[in-house]
Amino acid sequence: MKPVVVTNIERPDRSSVERLGRYSVATLHEAMGREGLMLPYMRPIYRGAHAFGTAVTVLCHPGDNLMIHASVEVCRPGDVLVVTTTSPCTDGMFGELLATSLKARGVAGLVIEAGVRDVAELEKMEFPVWSRAISAQGTVKATPGSVNVPIVCAGVTVRPGDVIVADMDGVVCVPKERADEVASRAEERVAKEEATRARLAAGELGLDIYGLRDKLRALGVTWV
Amino acid sequence: MKPVVVTNIERPDRSSVERLGRYSVATLHEAMGREGLMLPYMRPIYRGAHAFGTAVTVLCHPGDNLMIHASVEVCRPGDVLVVTTTSPCTDGMFGELLATSLKARGVAGLVIEAGVRDVAELEKMEFPVWSRAISAQGTVKATPGSVNVPIVCAGVTVRPGDVIVADMDGVVCVPKERADEVASRAEERVAKEEATRARLAAGELGLDIYGLRDKLRALGVTWV
Amino acid sequence: MKPVVVTNIERPDRSSVERLGRYSVATLHEAMGREGLMLPYMRPIYRGAHAFGTAVTVLCHPGDNLMIHASVEVCRPGDVLVVTTTSPCTDGMFGELLATSLKARGVAGLVIEAGVRDVAELEKMEFPVWSRAISAQGTVKATPGSVNVPIVCAGVTVRPGDVIVADMDGVVCVPKERADEVASRAEERVAKEEATRARLAAGELGLDIYGLRDKLRALGVTWV
Amino acid sequence: MKPVVVTNIERPDRSSVERLGRYSVATLHEAMGREGLMLPYMRPIYRGAHAFGTAVTVLCHPGDNLMIHASVEVCRPGDVLVVTTTSPCTDGMFGELLATSLKARGVAGLVIEAGVRDVAELEKMEFPVWSRAISAQGTVKATPGSVNVPIVCAGVTVRPGDVIVADMDGVVCVPKERADEVASRAEERVAKEEATRARLAAGELGLDIYGLRDKLRALGVTWV
Amino acid sequence: MKPVVVTNIERPDRSSVERLGRYSVATLHEAMGREGLMLPYMRPIYRGAHAFGTAVTVLCHPGDNLMIHASVEVCRPGDVLVVTTTSPCTDGMFGELLATSLKARGVAGLVIEAGVRDVAELEKMEFPVWSRAISAQGTVKATPGSVNVPIVCAGVTVRPGDVIVADMDGVVCVPKERADEVASRAEERVAKEEATRARLAAGELGLDIYGLRDKLRALGVTWV
Amino acid sequence: MKPVVVTNIERPDRSSVERLGRYSVATLHEAMGREGLMLPYMRPIYRGAHAFGTAVTVLCHPGDNLMIHASVEVCRPGDVLVVTTTSPCTDGMFGELLATSLKARGVAGLVIEAGVRDVAELEKMEFPVWSRAISAQGTVKATPGSVNVPIVCAGVTVRPGDVIVADMDGVVCVPKERADEVASRAEERVAKEEATRARLAAGELGLDIYGLRDKLRALGVTWV
Repeated sequence: MKPVVVTNIERPDRSSVERLGRYSVATLHEAMGREGLMLPYMRPIYRGAHAFGTAVTVLCHPGDNLMIHASVEVCRPGDVLVVTTTSPCTDGMFGELLATSLKARGVAGLVIEAGVRDVAELEKMEFPVWSRAISAQGTVKATPGSVNVPIVCAGVTVRPGDVIVADMDGVVCVPKERADEVASRAEERVAKEEATRARLAAGELGLDIYGLRDKLRALGVTWV
Repeated sequence: MKPVVVTNIERPDRSSVERLGRYSVATLHEAMGREGLMLPYMRPIYRGAHAFGTAVTVLCHPGDNLMIHASVEVCRPGDVLVVTTTSPCTDGMFGELLATSLKARGVAGLVIEAGVRDVAELEKMEFPVWSRAISAQGTVKATPGSVNVPIVCAGVTVRPGDVIVADMDGVVCVPKERADEVASRAEERVAKEEATRARLAAGELGLDIYGLRDKLRALGVTWV
Repeated sequence: MKPVVVTNIERPDRSSVERLGRYSVATLHEAMGREGLMLPYMRPIYRGAHAFGTAVTVLCHPGDNLMIHASVEVCRPGDVLVVTTTSPCTDGMFGELLATSLKARGVAGLVIEAGVRDVAELEKMEFPVWSRAISAQGTVKATPGSVNVPIVCAGVTVRPGDVIVADMDGVVCVPKERADEVASRAEERVAKEEATRARLAAGELGLDIYGLRDKLRALGVTWV
Repeated sequence: MKPVVVTNIERPDRSSVERLGRYSVATLHEAMGREGLMLPYMRPIYRGAHAFGTAVTVLCHPGDNLMIHASVEVCRPGDVLVVTTTSPCTDGMFGELLATSLKARGVAGLVIEAGVRDVAELEKMEFPVWSRAISAQGTVKATPGSVNVPIVCAGVTVRPGDVIVADMDGVVCVPKERADEVASRAEERVAKEEATRARLAAGELGLDIYGLRDKLRALGVTWV
Repeated sequence: MKPVVVTNIERPDRSSVERLGRYSVATLHEAMGREGLMLPYMRPIYRGAHAFGTAVTVLCHPGDNLMIHASVEVCRPGDVLVVTTTSPCTDGMFGELLATSLKARGVAGLVIEAGVRDVAELEKMEFPVWSRAISAQGTVKATPGSVNVPIVCAGVTVRPGDVIVADMDGVVCVPKERADEVASRAEERVAKEEATRARLAAGELGLDIYGLRDKLRALGVTWV
Repeated sequence: MKPVVVTNIERPDRSSVERLGRYSVATLHEAMGREGLMLPYMRPIYRGAHAFGTAVTVLCHPGDNLMIHASVEVCRPGDVLVVTTTSPCTDGMFGELLATSLKARGVAGLVIEAGVRDVAELEKMEFPVWSRAISAQGTVKATPGSVNVPIVCAGVTVRPGDVIVADMDGVVCVPKERADEVASRAEERVAKEEATRARLAAGELGLDIYGLRDKLRALGVTWV
C-alpha cells in the first residue's frame, strides 16, 4: 500500500456519537449482535478510564511513531485516535507530549495496539489510553505509514469515522452506518436490564426470568 | 460425563470457614504444605478484593454461561462460586446482573477461569471476582454442563464445599476435611511470624534467625 | 559458576544516584540512547510505585529464595535489590517479612524477575516492587546461588552498583560509569521537552516543531 | 449480525489464483506492499504444507463447529476454507472427517484461528491446515454463525473470494481485485531476486548491491 | 503434604489398557464425554510420537528432578510416567539418561508439565515424550516431593494407575474405573465414523448426514 | 549508544571452538555450571539443526534488518551470526537471500531473537537458524544499530567472539575465555555419563548410582 494521509473523513453526526457514548462497552457489543469487540489484551492504563469518539486511524511501522505525529493535524474535537502497527510491537509509541498535542485538539483518547509510556502523567492529565502494553521503550521516526485508511486493531476492522467506545471492560468499534441503530438497541437493552436487575435483586432467579429450566431439561441436565 | 446439577453439598462448619477467612492466601498456602494455590494468572479485578467461603462449582462450555445461571439457586449465604470451562476461554461469562443475583443470595464472590465484564460496576457493588481475563465478550446459553461436580480450576482440584480464600495475592482452595487443621497451622505460623517480624524490623538478619549461614557454607557458597 | 557472595561493591556517588532519581524511566532510557530498559513484563505491584538506587544483584535457583536471605546483609541504605533466577519462575520468592528486613537496612525497593507475594502488605508498607508475576506460591531455601555478580534481568545486564530507576512505566538500569553523563543528558532533555510541551499545548503541531513534513514527503507519503 | 450463509460469492479467475499460487507467502506479502499477512501464531500442522485458493469464510462461536458443517456445500474445487471464532478459542474444531468431506469437494486446505485435531491423519491425507493450536478438544453444534461474510482472521481482513496462499512461513490474503497486480509484482520481484541471489552466492555483498554503505554513514554509523 | 513414595498402586487389567491404546486421543476424549484432555500446550517432542499405559505420578519442586529419580523403581512395564511441578517450570527436568533407565524397566513414555532435553537422542531411542517446553536447562536434586499421589497435570487430575494415551493431538487421561466403558464407547464411535467417512468421501454432506439443516433454520440462519 | 560496526574481534582458537562443537548444548550448559543457556523460546527452524561457531553480534531496531546487511562483511568462516533487537519483535528479519550471502562467507548458522522467513528454503540450503518466531513479515532498512557490541539475546549476554553451540535442545553461549575449560569439563562429563548409561541400561537405579536414598530419607520422604 502506498503511504497516504487522508485528511477528510466522513464522521457520523455528533449526536449519534454521544448517544453511543452513554452506554457501556458490554452493552454496545451486545446491541451490535456481539460484534466489534477488540481482543481482551487491550487494557486501560488507569482505573476509571472511559472514552468515546470518532476514529482517526493510524498504521505505523513497529517501533516508529512518525505517522502518529502525521495524524495530529487531521484530528478534530471528539475524535479517538486508533493506532495499529504492521507487525506485533510493545514499544512505548505514545507519551505525554503527544497527549498534550492531542488534548489541545480536543481528542478524547487513544486506542493503540502497541505500548504506551508516561502512564502516570497520562493519568494526571486524564487522557485515557487503551493499549496492549506499557513500556518506556522509545521509538524512531523513520518509516512511512498511513493515516485514515481502514485498519485491523486487536482483531477488529476499524474504518476512519467509525465510533469507538472504551471503558474498563475493553474497546468496541461501532461502524458509523450503524451508529443510530446500535444506540437504539442499546437503549432498549438497558431498559430491559433495569427491570431484570430489580427482580434479581429481589431474589428471583435468572433460571425463571429467562425460562431456562425447560431448556436445561431438554439438553439432558438432571438435578440430583 | 452426563450433565448434572447437584443441589445439596456437604459444607464444613461455618466457624471453620471463618477461621480460615482470617488468614492471607500466602499464609494458608504455607499452612497446607504449599498446596492448593491456583496458577498466578488468576487475578482480582479490583484493588483490595478479598473473599472467602465454601465452593459451589460450575463446569461450563466455553462462551456459554448457561450453567452459571443454573448454579444460582443452589448457592447459600457464605458460598463462593468457582467456575471453569471445558476448554480455554477468555469471554466475559459473568457480569453485574449475575452478581446482583448472587449478592441477593449472600454469595461472597466469584473465581472464574474465563473472563468477566462490567468490572467497574462490580467494584462499585463490592462483589469481588478473580478471573483470567477481563472481556466484554458476550456468551450464549446453549450447551449443558454441570454444577457441584469436582472441577480443575487454574491448576487446582476444587470439590463442592471446599473452602476458597482469595486476596490480592491469588486464590487458594483448602479441602473441607482439612479446614480446621489448616486454620490451626495458619494460626501458629502467624504467631511465629509476628515474632520474626519484630526481630527483622529491629535489624536482625534472616540469615541468623533462620540459621542459614552454615547451610550456605555447606552448599559451597563463599564470601569474598 | 561457583556460588559466591561479594560483600563489597563499587557504588557511584550518592549525589549522582539522586540526580538520576529525579527523572522518569522514559527520560533516562532516552538519555542513554535507548538502552538499558527492562522488558515490559516487569510491572509495579501498586499504583504510584517509584524507586531508585544502586543495584545489589542476586542470582537464585527457581523456587528458592535462599540467596535473597544471603543478600540482605550486604545491602546499604539507598540500594535496590535486583533478583533474577537461573530459569523462568513465577513463584512468590519475596514477601513482607523480607521487605521488613530490607526496609530496616534502608533498601529502596525490589526488582525481581519472578513472582512476589503479600502485595497488599507491601503497598501498606510503601515498599515498591517490580516483578513479572504476583503469586502466593512459597519457595524453599535449598540451592546455592550468588550475590553481587553481573546478572541478566528482564533482558538487561545489571552489574552490582549500577543505578536502577523504576516507575509506573518500567525499570531502567544505568551503568554506574555513565551515571553523571546520563543525568546531564536527561536534564537537557527535560528542559527541551518543557519548551516543546508549551508549544504543543498551545496548538502547534509536532509535524512543524520537529520539521517532519519534508521527511514525510521524501518518504513518499501523500496527502489526499 | 444476523446469521447468514451466502451461497454464491465472486471468485477471481482461476488463472489469476494459479499465478499467485506459484509464489511464496513472503514474496506475495512483499509484492502487496507488506500487507495481508496473518499473525505468526498461525502455523502449518505438518512440514512441507502448501496451499492456495479462493477463500470461503466461516464465523463460528468458540467451541462450536456447526457453521463449518454449513460451509461445506458452498465450497467449490480450488477453494480454501478460512475459519475464525467470535472470541479466542483453541479447541479442535476440525478433524479428518470434515477434511474427508472437503477433499471430496476439491477444497485445497484450511486456515483456522482455533485448534485442529487428527493431525497425523490429516498429514497422511495430505490435507494442509494452518491453525493457532493443535488440540483433541471436541466441539458442539449448538450456536449459529455465518458463512461467506467478511471476517478478521489472525489480524487480517478476509472477504469471501479473496485469494489465500499458505506455506511454511505462514498465510497471506490477497484481495481478489489485486490478484493480477500482485502476481505481476511477485513475478518481477522473483526475477530481480534471482539475479541478486547469484551475485550474493558469488560473494558480493548486499551492502554494495543495495547501496547501503552511504546510508549507514548518513545515519551516523561508524566503523572501528 | 508430607512427601511420600507410594510403591504399590492399583492398575487396571493390561487388556483394558491395550484396548484403550488402539484408539486416538480425540476418539477417547469423545468417548469419555469430552473430559480428561490435557491443555493443548502439551506437545510431543517428535513427529509420530504415540504412547499408552498406566500412570505413575510424580510431584516435583520446580527445577528439581529428585522425585523423578525416586519414581523409577516403582515403575512397571507398560507404565507411563506423568510428572508435574508445584509451580510453573520450563526446565529440562528429564533427558536421555533417565529415559535409558525407564526403558530398561519397560516404561512406555513420559508426560511432563515442564521441559525436557536431549530431544534428538530421545527420538533416536524412540522414547516418546509430551512436554510444555524443550530446554537444556539443568536441574538440581535438593527438594522432596511425592510419587504416586493424585496430581493435576496440564489441567487434568491424574491418579496413579489411571490410563494415559498420547499421540500427535495431545494427551488424555482415562480414570481406571472407566477403562472398559470408555474403550467400548470408543469402539462404537470408530465403527460409526467409518460409515460416515465413506459417505462423506462419496460427496454426501455432513449437513444431511447429521440432520443439521433444520437446526440451522431453527437457530435463525438464512441462506442468501 | 552511538551506532558502530566493529570490524575486528578477538576469536578463540578454532581448535577450541571445534572441541566445544563436539558436545551437546545440554552437556555444555552443565559443564559451564548451568550458565549461558538462552531462554527456551529460541527454537530451531528444522529437525536435525545443529551449529557451532564464534559469535558475530548484531543489534537491530525492530522490523529493520539494515544492520544484518552491515554485519556480513565482518563475518569469517566458522562464525555464527547472533542477532537481537532493541525491543521485542517477531518479524521475518532474515531469509534465504541473506543466508546465501552468509553461506558464501562460510558462516555456520544464525541465532536471532526475532522472526525468520523462507524456512523451507533454509532447510533445503541446510542453513540452520534458531529464532523466536517464523514469520513472512518483511522489514525495512531505515534505522542504525551496531555490529559486534555485547548484546543480550534471549536472556544471555553474548560478546563478539564468544562461542555459540546450538542443537535441537536450544542455544548456549560459552564465553571465549572459558572455551578450553568448558570443553574439558564437557569431555569429563561425557565420559562419566557413558559409564552411568551402561549401568542404567542394565537396570541399575539412579537412586543407587547417585546415592539418593539417604538424601530422600534425610529430607523426610517416606515409602508406603
